[in-house]
Amino acid sequence: MAAPPPARPRRLLPLSLGLFQGALLLFFAIFVTYDEPSARAEDANLVANQLYGIFPLFQDIQVMLVVGLGLLLTFLPLYGLSAIAHNFLLLNFSTQWALVLQGLLHHFHHGQVHLDLHNLLTAEFAAVTVLISVGAVLGRTSPCQLLVVATCEVPIYLASEWAIVTRLGVLDVGGTITIHVFSCYFGLGVSKALFGAARQPVHPKETPTPRSDLLSLVGTLILWVFWPSFVAVLCQPGDAQHRAILNTLLAMSASAVTTVVASSLLERDGKLSPGHLQNGSLAGGVAIGAVADMAVPPVAALALGSLSAVACVLGFRFLTPLLARKLALQDQCGIHNLHGLPGILGAAASAVAILVASEDTSGSRFSQVSPVGGNASEAAGGRWGDRGAGGQALCQAAGLAVAIGGSLLAGMLAGAALRLPCLARPPEQLCFDDSLYFNIQDQAESPGPGSTAEEEALALKERV
Amino acid sequence: MAAPPPARPRRLLPLSLGLFQGALLLFFAIFVTYDEPSARAEDANLVANQLYGIFPLFQDIQVMLVVGLGLLLTFLPLYGLSAIAHNFLLLNFSTQWALVLQGLLHHFHHGQVHLDLHNLLTAEFAAVTVLISVGAVLGRTSPCQLLVVATCEVPIYLASEWAIVTRLGVLDVGGTITIHVFSCYFGLGVSKALFGAARQPVHPKETPTPRSDLLSLVGTLILWVFWPSFVAVLCQPGDAQHRAILNTLLAMSASAVTTVVASSLLERDGKLSPGHLQNGSLAGGVAIGAVADMAVPPVAALALGSLSAVACVLGFRFLTPLLARKLALQDQCGIHNLHGLPGILGAAASAVAILVASEDTSGSRFSQVSPVGGNASEAAGGRWGDRGAGGQALCQAAGLAVAIGGSLLAGMLAGAALRLPCLARPPEQLCFDDSLYFNIQDQAESPGPGSTAEEEALALKERV
Amino acid sequence: MAAPPPARPRRLLPLSLGLFQGALLLFFAIFVTYDEPSARAEDANLVANQLYGIFPLFQDIQVMLVVGLGLLLTFLPLYGLSAIAHNFLLLNFSTQWALVLQGLLHHFHHGQVHLDLHNLLTAEFAAVTVLISVGAVLGRTSPCQLLVVATCEVPIYLASEWAIVTRLGVLDVGGTITIHVFSCYFGLGVSKALFGAARQPVHPKETPTPRSDLLSLVGTLILWVFWPSFVAVLCQPGDAQHRAILNTLLAMSASAVTTVVASSLLERDGKLSPGHLQNGSLAGGVAIGAVADMAVPPVAALALGSLSAVACVLGFRFLTPLLARKLALQDQCGIHNLHGLPGILGAAASAVAILVASEDTSGSRFSQVSPVGGNASEAAGGRWGDRGAGGQALCQAAGLAVAIGGSLLAGMLAGAALRLPCLARPPEQLCFDDSLYFNIQDQAESPGPGSTAEEEALALKERV
Repeated sequence: MAAPPPARPRRLLPLSLGLFQGALLLFFAIFVTYDEPSARAEDANLVANQLYGIFPLFQDIQVMLVVGLGLLLTFLPLYGLSAIAHNFLLLNFSTQWALVLQGLLHHFHHGQVHLDLHNLLTAEFAAVTVLISVGAVLGRTSPCQLLVVATCEVPIYLASEWAIVTRLGVLDVGGTITIHVFSCYFGLGVSKALFGAARQPVHPKETPTPRSDLLSLVGTLILWVFWPSFVAVLCQPGDAQHRAILNTLLAMSASAVTTVVASSLLERDGKLSPGHLQNGSLAGGVAIGAVADMAVPPVAALALGSLSAVACVLGFRFLTPLLARKLALQDQCGIHNLHGLPGILGAAASAVAILVASEDTSGSRFSQVSPVGGNASEAAGGRWGDRGAGGQALCQAAGLAVAIGGSLLAGMLAGAALRLPCLARPPEQLCFDDSLYFNIQDQAESPGPGSTAEEEALALKERV
Repeated sequence: MAAPPPARPRRLLPLSLGLFQGALLLFFAIFVTYDEPSARAEDANLVANQLYGIFPLFQDIQVMLVVGLGLLLTFLPLYGLSAIAHNFLLLNFSTQWALVLQGLLHHFHHGQVHLDLHNLLTAEFAAVTVLISVGAVLGRTSPCQLLVVATCEVPIYLASEWAIVTRLGVLDVGGTITIHVFSCYFGLGVSKALFGAARQPVHPKETPTPRSDLLSLVGTLILWVFWPSFVAVLCQPGDAQHRAILNTLLAMSASAVTTVVASSLLERDGKLSPGHLQNGSLAGGVAIGAVADMAVPPVAALALGSLSAVACVLGFRFLTPLLARKLALQDQCGIHNLHGLPGILGAAASAVAILVASEDTSGSRFSQVSPVGGNASEAAGGRWGDRGAGGQALCQAAGLAVAIGGSLLAGMLAGAALRLPCLARPPEQLCFDDSLYFNIQDQAESPGPGSTAEEEALALKERV
Repeated sequence: MAAPPPARPRRLLPLSLGLFQGALLLFFAIFVTYDEPSARAEDANLVANQLYGIFPLFQDIQVMLVVGLGLLLTFLPLYGLSAIAHNFLLLNFSTQWALVLQGLLHHFHHGQVHLDLHNLLTAEFAAVTVLISVGAVLGRTSPCQLLVVATCEVPIYLASEWAIVTRLGVLDVGGTITIHVFSCYFGLGVSKALFGAARQPVHPKETPTPRSDLLSLVGTLILWVFWPSFVAVLCQPGDAQHRAILNTLLAMSASAVTTVVASSLLERDGKLSPGHLQNGSLAGGVAIGAVADMAVPPVAALALGSLSAVACVLGFRFLTPLLARKLALQDQCGIHNLHGLPGILGAAASAVAILVASEDTSGSRFSQVSPVGGNASEAAGGRWGDRGAGGQALCQAAGLAVAIGGSLLAGMLAGAALRLPCLARPPEQLCFDDSLYFNIQDQAESPGPGSTAEEEALALKERV
């Protein structure tokens, strides 16, 4: 074992986190309140019904982020505890930080910030971007560095989301552009700036084992099951939400099957790569977000799911090694393949869907393909109003460009900040190892000198 | 390591799957649409409420099939990745295939197939039969063979379900007869025809380890928790659904406790068998399906849960070895014990419940035991109309006979098809091993010649 | 391997459990019925809506208790199967036993007990106390002993809950006092009386491994995600329930972050302790129960979550070793740190919240801090009626005292009963080992004499 890093930097994490918790308490004490309780019984009923509508979806999303994503990250065999714990810490920290910023920006009325389940949900969406981005640097960064990423990324996400959705009017109910594309390029920017031009060597501990791949695949399955809730939770209740759920289910089903096809064709002997399965199965969910609630025909969802799975698998097979070789770009979890490529596909699909839907309304062949949006009033004018379908399609493209450009730039700035020595970047030989962050009683080390190989095997057996 | 099978058959899986995806896209492009969005606000509200009613149950079932059943199958210690991935692939393929067939058969109006969450759900139920059946041949079949099973079983299930439910009018809301009994005997038929009269030797890799048993037990628990949703999702909303949930909860609780009793009495030293616990705890859920929404008294649900757990444990202890010895019948997961025996018990219970309920209405002692069915109008005449209770009970028996006979026959035909050499049945020495289907980087193999036992133990430790 | 305990005591478990199942069937046959189905369509709609409101929360709680808590207990590396199976068995047995007792006590009208989902839920809450209590003696007790604990604890819980909630009128919607504090001190009483004054030595098998810690952490995350459902399920639907969910989410988020701070400050090298993370993250959920539906400001929930996490981590670091040293008190899972200390904090917080809320209504500075309770009529007089806020605060304290005193006393009596020799307490060298309770085929033992270390490593590899 190499010597652990000096003690002082290791105090930075608890001290800064503790300080943040104190500031959060202060902010909440001064500004944050709940809504007044409803005065009338009918209102109370309404509140109850709204709660029953949103709460199961909210819980689904919590399971995805805490359990599903956590397990997905355990593919590094000796880094499972750290991956899952850092993911959990980052989710909570980023959500709290987003609550503060959102409160100041959006919900500040008469000196008070009103908190409800919807606020918490949008704050959690901001946190998702952080969880995705740090996948690029998983295992080679300290928790302090991860907190710096979160601190930088949340406000930039809020600004980017404001620019894309509020200013440009981009339609993106499932976060394809605002969340997935944004966080992917932010993470790649961080990785590039942090690791610079030096290509990282293959680390002996970064190869998954069948066991760690299995747990990671379970994480994928949990994400796969609950993804429709993630896409549909912010939709207009009723038809649009129903359609969003169906589109997501179709896209993900196509992704799952297509991933097997693509992986099996590309790998030697027709075998599957666990990594392809873990990521490709989810690609459809990433891509469908921007068009999920639009009145696209079911075949579009299927096709988009298939295409994005192909893009994801091809990315893993060819693009990631290429980027590593040419640009020395580190992408530990392959976020560019799961969030970048399918996200771009989804954005393109949304532009196409808008153009096609507009043609259909003026002289429609398929009466069922009503324009984007759920109810009849929208069906008349289209959600994009007097901008026109072409204008809206352009906006989708512009939104994509803003998401990529802004996040890449901001990510590189954040990544540069991560090079500060006080942030305790782990030395290479201690990367991908839980023992750097956890007090683990290692039974396998207990047999003293003089122990035979047999004894060691026994100790090991116990440990297994 | 033996030589892998030749390369050409290994291309069969991606090519046939890819072809199917293409055909699916074509079918969806030509025929499948969503429902028109509701024109009026009240309708939209109704859609939203219906969605909030069914969607959480739908998600529960997805968790069961993808995560719960997947984990349950990981009891083979070196076959976890394959078990979970093949289950996932089969679920998606079979659901898509069932959507196509159902669309053509049931939902084809004016040249269009209307897709909604309810369709997806019934398609998924068809897929469940495949997932259950292949349990009989788990670990000794290639994915190509599994896809052939799915291709055959889905249409036969649809035909069988039509015969049993639509023609015979069998009452079976939770799929005891139509899903569990049917798929069990289909799977046994496949196994018999595939393996023939040669008894399979015990394979060194088919013995579970405590670790693989633990993961498998977690799968059981997930299935156990969400089973009530599976049984109740297609019930009449309101009282019938409430009753179905309660009956299922009671039956599964009784199963869990009774399994411990039965296993402990039958095993040496009063210990438990992990396999009994993994399966017996679920037996009540299988059996209760046919009577779940009937107005049976709570004690009937408890008793049925206990009885079916006893049958399941006895089956594992005595019947499975007997069938293997006398008939050379392979049943890797013991589907006959979990789905066959409890299913038959449940079918019998439904006939008895119908007879008892009819006696109770004509001179009832317990006023609460209203006849089968949820609301008052049904309580008057009984759901079976002028067929009479005796006739309905006979129908239940006839349905059971159709399910067993038809599926056994069809399963044997499908199993015979699996013997085609091009389907790449794995050679015996490569069975139960992930390395046949997954590109796994095996760290333990990396130490070259000359490495000492100590080095190997180290490499192994890393891998653990 | 030491000799297993004699065969006769091993029959005690199935025989007594089987007897109980028989008695349960008899009780259900004679007394228990479902509610009459609703006669009118509107009522049926109402039933359906109520079901859709409560059922998803009910399922969340089932996942917590069966999967989440089960996994949390797998931190003992060789005792995972037993921990998860005993938890499952105890949950079912205790719920059934509570159904019987509750039926006799509360729901017995005209010779019948009416069963619905609400009854099942409250019976499950009684079972939760058992699951928590036995954490103190995990791994050193036989299933027979655990069943005796359950048999004793459920009626005492029902009595204690009646005294605290019905007689004293204590406000405790999330079970902070009635469930968590009660079960903690009951468990500690059992442990003290069972193990006596002899301090248990550290057992070689009780040290977690990174792998067992990882599964246990996944259990924590599942509990963390679904905890809001546990706290809110019995709340008044509408505002109070919404507030309970928000308060719980805030408290648990603060707990998660604060646990990292506290653990990192207290452990050497600033590393984290897996045990701290597994428990501290949940402390906020325990503490918030008593105030969750009160109109406390959001900052109170955050502060309570942080404080309870600090208390939990400090408890693990200092109090548990101290109690073990001074009082020879065994607390295997650290239930005193997760349920005792945060529970006491939560009870104190509820008294303070009541006093503060009452001051606020008479001359309130913050209009939003309406007194405890959800709707306007309560807002006028306060839920505590003419008892006054001071009286109510005193009642909360009295309830805490009753919960601690009563449970400690009753727990010690129950623990004394566990010393009966027929209950087959496992001998020390067989503690913490699945092989005492499960028939496990141990592949690693199969290589006969003469096998080289290399062969053993291979056998081991297979087993891994």
